[in-house]
Amino acid sequence: MRHALITLERMGLSTDLYELTMAQAFLESEIADRTATFDLSVRSLPQERGYLVAAGLEQALAYLRDFRFWPEALNYLERSCHFKPKLVKYLGSLRFTGSVEAVPEGTVYFPPGPLLRITAPIIEAQIIETYLLTTMTYQTMIASKASRVVDAADGRAVIDFSPRRDHGPQAGLLAARAAYIGGCIGTSNVLANERFDIPIFGTMAHSFVMFHRDEEAAFRQFARSYPGDPTLLIDTYDTVEGARIAAKVGSSLEGGRRLAAVRIDSGDLLPLSQQVRTVLDQGGCPDTHILASGDLDEYKIEQLLADGAALDGFGVGTQLGTSGDAPSLSSTYKLVACDDENGREIPVIKLSAAKVSLPGRKQIWRQRDADGTPVGDTVGMVDEELPGDGLLRPYMRDGHLLESMPELGEIRDQAREQRTALPADVRRLREPAEYPVSNSTRLNALIDKLRKR
Amino acid sequence: MRHALITLERMGLSTDLYELTMAQAFLESEIADRTATFDLSVRSLPQERGYLVAAGLEQALAYLRDFRFWPEALNYLERSCHFKPKLVKYLGSLRFTGSVEAVPEGTVYFPPGPLLRITAPIIEAQIIETYLLTTMTYQTMIASKASRVVDAADGRAVIDFSPRRDHGPQAGLLAARAAYIGGCIGTSNVLANERFDIPIFGTMAHSFVMFHRDEEAAFRQFARSYPGDPTLLIDTYDTVEGARIAAKVGSSLEGGRRLAAVRIDSGDLLPLSQQVRTVLDQGGCPDTHILASGDLDEYKIEQLLADGAALDGFGVGTQLGTSGDAPSLSSTYKLVACDDENGREIPVIKLSAAKVSLPGRKQIWRQRDADGTPVGDTVGMVDEELPGDGLLRPYMRDGHLLESMPELGEIRDQAREQRTALPADVRRLREPAEYPVSNSTRLNALIDKLRKR
Repeated sequence: MRHALITLERMGLSTDLYELTMAQAFLESEIADRTATFDLSVRSLPQERGYLVAAGLEQALAYLRDFRFWPEALNYLERSCHFKPKLVKYLGSLRFTGSVEAVPEGTVYFPPGPLLRITAPIIEAQIIETYLLTTMTYQTMIASKASRVVDAADGRAVIDFSPRRDHGPQAGLLAARAAYIGGCIGTSNVLANERFDIPIFGTMAHSFVMFHRDEEAAFRQFARSYPGDPTLLIDTYDTVEGARIAAKVGSSLEGGRRLAAVRIDSGDLLPLSQQVRTVLDQGGCPDTHILASGDLDEYKIEQLLADGAALDGFGVGTQLGTSGDAPSLSSTYKLVACDDENGREIPVIKLSAAKVSLPGRKQIWRQRDADGTPVGDTVGMVDEELPGDGLLRPYMRDGHLLESMPELGEIRDQAREQRTALPADVRRLREPAEYPVSNSTRLNALIDKLRKR
Repeated sequence: MRHALITLERMGLSTDLYELTMAQAFLESEIADRTATFDLSVRSLPQERGYLVAAGLEQALAYLRDFRFWPEALNYLERSCHFKPKLVKYLGSLRFTGSVEAVPEGTVYFPPGPLLRITAPIIEAQIIETYLLTTMTYQTMIASKASRVVDAADGRAVIDFSPRRDHGPQAGLLAARAAYIGGCIGTSNVLANERFDIPIFGTMAHSFVMFHRDEEAAFRQFARSYPGDPTLLIDTYDTVEGARIAAKVGSSLEGGRRLAAVRIDSGDLLPLSQQVRTVLDQGGCPDTHILASGDLDEYKIEQLLADGAALDGFGVGTQLGTSGDAPSLSSTYKLVACDDENGREIPVIKLSAAKVSLPGRKQIWRQRDADGTPVGDTVGMVDEELPGDGLLRPYMRDGHLLESMPELGEIRDQAREQRTALPADVRRLREPAEYPVSNSTRLNALIDKLRKR
């Protein structure tokens, strides 16, 4: 019986076969030592998304820093019919020695410019593709979804409740991190607290209440055992009656503790929340928050608050952790330049079937108006001087990290500032306005030139 | 900079906070030693799904077998404000000592009966909820999706191409395993071969072709370096011209090797595949397969084949690995029985808000007609004797495994047999017929009795 865990020792094998068969082919060719540049980008925005929030760079860089094939992995490759001994030997000493430029985590990002750029010897630059894509894409997708949910909650708390619904345990950990970047106040995922110091929240399951003689016994037992201010789940039997009992238990707490919140996980949240609010206020718990959960998303939250629901926070699971209405991003990892036989960098383009890539090493410049509102991005060549702030920054040179990464809290602050600075129509949850992204004149001229060839 | 990896040492922390706060509350209560029974089930079928394929049990059992809090995890818990020393000490020696019954992997399953049942001391039975749900739900969802895609391919090969699109690297590994159970012939994920002996397939990226002087140089280089029968990607520039060049390179291979396949990743697959077939046949490669990829799913594959596309296999990524049209399952983990103060097992029910759970320890019986076609499932109490075969089998007693798990190939065979035995209208990709699932008379009487209380 085998676990399905990704460990440091197996990270190198967590890749598509073709990355390794291509490495083998490069290794035996005269172009093995040439330098190549790849862009990791998103082709276009998913449905109903006006913008994305970049996330996942820290794990991408950690992967590049620790990239290697461990002895166990090499033994496996040696036994495989797909590889020759020469490749296995080569992989044994392979490390990532290239450069990385990227849009910082927490940055609002609009396709299709580069989210991350790799410049490295051809084999290195190619072999990291699969892992980089899966690492960056999922976190960016979830940070973007979280940003929408947080926007819908309009200042109220949003907590990631998705671990049981995410696509496996690691997805849960990545989701918690990305959701926090996107603006959630925390997660129910304990490991996300241990790994990334993300605040954790939790209460009890319906089963806990059912185990006890009655709700009051369950609430008292929980309040007795939990060292902090408890949150109680009040909808196991009758939500309003549950609120009465919670208020009774809450108002009798000793030692300066108070009832932090009650949670409602089912039923018609609009009338229930209002009734529960009245019960709590009258029952001596006016400061107790009401938290809602159960199949919520940004659309339902927006509607509930527009209708006047008395809710102070939201636990969002399935739809947040799977980005339910758009569970994938059209991310790509495309060759944009490679050296010729004289070591000169040549921009390249892929033209097949309506999927035109943007050639060459590029920067994204963001222009803002006098109020700081972003008004348009221009994608141009790195050596251009265009108005606005360049989004891509250097993170690695020759395989070494250039600077320490910001704290997760700073990344989250950055995301919030950038989200709130966006034009309202770009931020809108449904049918958002298109934010202007254009190519520089030089980039368009380069595309034309390469097209004509 | 931190990786986001789930290791054996951290598995215990990969859970919702409330599992641990509930454990703390149970520990301090008089009911801590009682035995409880939980059902892990799926509430209902997602859209367009006529059936599900059970998967993920091996990883669930591996988790239960190795369940423990390692010293590093305990140190973390000790520092947390949520827990008291008594809990941390208790967790230090906690192991899973309960029983597991489950529907075997590869079994066709219809909600809402139990997919897996846990009977264990209350704390153990509760604390494993989150990890079990995420492990079982994702694999079951993907095996079910794969089964549909394989059905659509109508005997042609389907390969999991999803690693870059899955929700993180571990999701990629789980997806590869589940997709294989669901009927894929293999995956592009190298780690899935190393971990689970799943066949791997791969060719080259467009970048590989672009790196070379021209397509012929790229194809020759790849064919030279790859020790087996190569597959070549032919759509980087012009697909039909690519096919000509591939046939030229393929028909000149030496040493008994042949061109295994060509892959088309873009464009209008119907006419392209037919033109490519002609080119390959006329170019001396009549046995070379044509493999299609690029945003495929079961609906597109069904249409392509109905229209007469000359395709022999499909690489399916995004839609397979994210179950794109239904990226979550409504799985639940519900208390169905617990001991009273005299150690007598009492069935329990949760009635709130239209989500009625099925009380007590249950079995699912499947009836078949004379041809072996399943005609209906009955969910009844374990000690009933109902017509048909019982689906749930014992896997663990007192925390020990009862038998070794079947090989993945056997599980896959089982899934294929069960899928092909299904009524055609239940198997249908769109608007499938509802398969009859009913409760036994005794189960309905029990629900009525508990409802009246």
